[in-house]
Amino acid sequence: MSAPARVVVARPVTFVTGNAKKLEEVRAILGTSIPFQSLKLDLPELQGEPEDISKEKARLAAIEVKGPILVEDTCLCFNALKGLPGMSVHTNLLVTKLCSKWFLQKIGHEGLNNLLMAYDDKSAYALCAFSFALGPDAEPITFLGKTPGKIVPARGPNDFGWDPVFQPDGYEQTYAEMPKEEKNKISHRSKALALVKSHFAEAGYIFEADDSRKSEL
Amino acid sequence: MSAPARVVVARPVTFVTGNAKKLEEVRAILGTSIPFQSLKLDLPELQGEPEDISKEKARLAAIEVKGPILVEDTCLCFNALKGLPGMSVHTNLLVTKLCSKWFLQKIGHEGLNNLLMAYDDKSAYALCAFSFALGPDAEPITFLGKTPGKIVPARGPNDFGWDPVFQPDGYEQTYAEMPKEEKNKISHRSKALALVKSHFAEAGYIFEADDSRKSEL
Repeated sequence: MSAPARVVVARPVTFVTGNAKKLEEVRAILGTSIPFQSLKLDLPELQGEPEDISKEKARLAAIEVKGPILVEDTCLCFNALKGLPGMSVHTNLLVTKLCSKWFLQKIGHEGLNNLLMAYDDKSAYALCAFSFALGPDAEPITFLGKTPGKIVPARGPNDFGWDPVFQPDGYEQTYAEMPKEEKNKISHRSKALALVKSHFAEAGYIFEADDSRKSEL
Repeated sequence: MSAPARVVVARPVTFVTGNAKKLEEVRAILGTSIPFQSLKLDLPELQGEPEDISKEKARLAAIEVKGPILVEDTCLCFNALKGLPGMSVHTNLLVTKLCSKWFLQKIGHEGLNNLLMAYDDKSAYALCAFSFALGPDAEPITFLGKTPGKIVPARGPNDFGWDPVFQPDGYEQTYAEMPKEEKNKISHRSKALALVKSHFAEAGYIFEADDSRKSEL
């Protein structure tokens, strides 16, 4: 077997970590086998608040679309789990991966109920964030809607996310069981959209290219 | 009250969604109050596999550091929850937010146990991914280590993540209870690092600036 080609490396390896315990463990395992130095890289991170995630998404979308933009995200938050599954702390370009959605995909409605098996408190809230930006250079405005309720075993049509396991406070039906018009009166999404509508009414935007109905709003 | 200034908008609002049910609901709620069109923006998204996340992180870190780089991520995956909490599907620049870590921060060791209350299957695995890149233009190489075990009520020192609730298969102690040398023989991190070491041994990198020990590895 011929000897492999030698690669000359100008510097020791930088190991990226800000965790002292982890660094200690890696040092213990590696010994002197690999020359390395550690570095904590502090780079900008999106805040985990739904409002910040939504704003950032609108900003990126407006750049992409080069025009007025509206983006929306929703999540389901369990009080016993301190707001988890909730909204993911990250957006990657325009794709916001929601922990709630991911959990639903992985473990289904029964799984969502099971997460709360250990707790008497089955209360939760549905949260919706819309962000509107007039264009790439405009600061996005965010509108939040929140509806309290509880997590129940799935009831109703299974064609819209976690609607079958969320029963809003004051109702005997889950989101999925409610007639659409009923749900749209009290849902997290309708509350957020009511704020969007108010904003449009107050701002009085005039849409030039809206051929069907060129008018003030 | 004076009338607000009118803003003329050249186009209808683009509502970003790829979800037909959501679009239908938004249409029902908004009616004709806001002129909008919907658009599904498909942008590149990191795959959710730990290997891909780790590679991408190394790529970004090597660009930042302009030199050889080693990055590491670990996660805890519950078999009953199909691998959740697991590793987050997203990295944002160099910051990989791990669902496991986030869950630990939010609900603690007891909370992690509680997530499995509904299941007899308490099995889990600890997963570690290291990625090494020689520099900004080099393709990162990933090394995975996996250790199977189960989730137990916390035992042992509480100074290193979820170590107190993870008991590796074939051992009576949790990671946290094990002497460090013992843990480092069988841990997910040591398995991944063994692969890193082998790679360095085979590649025979020569570190020019390693003053302490300028030698072949």
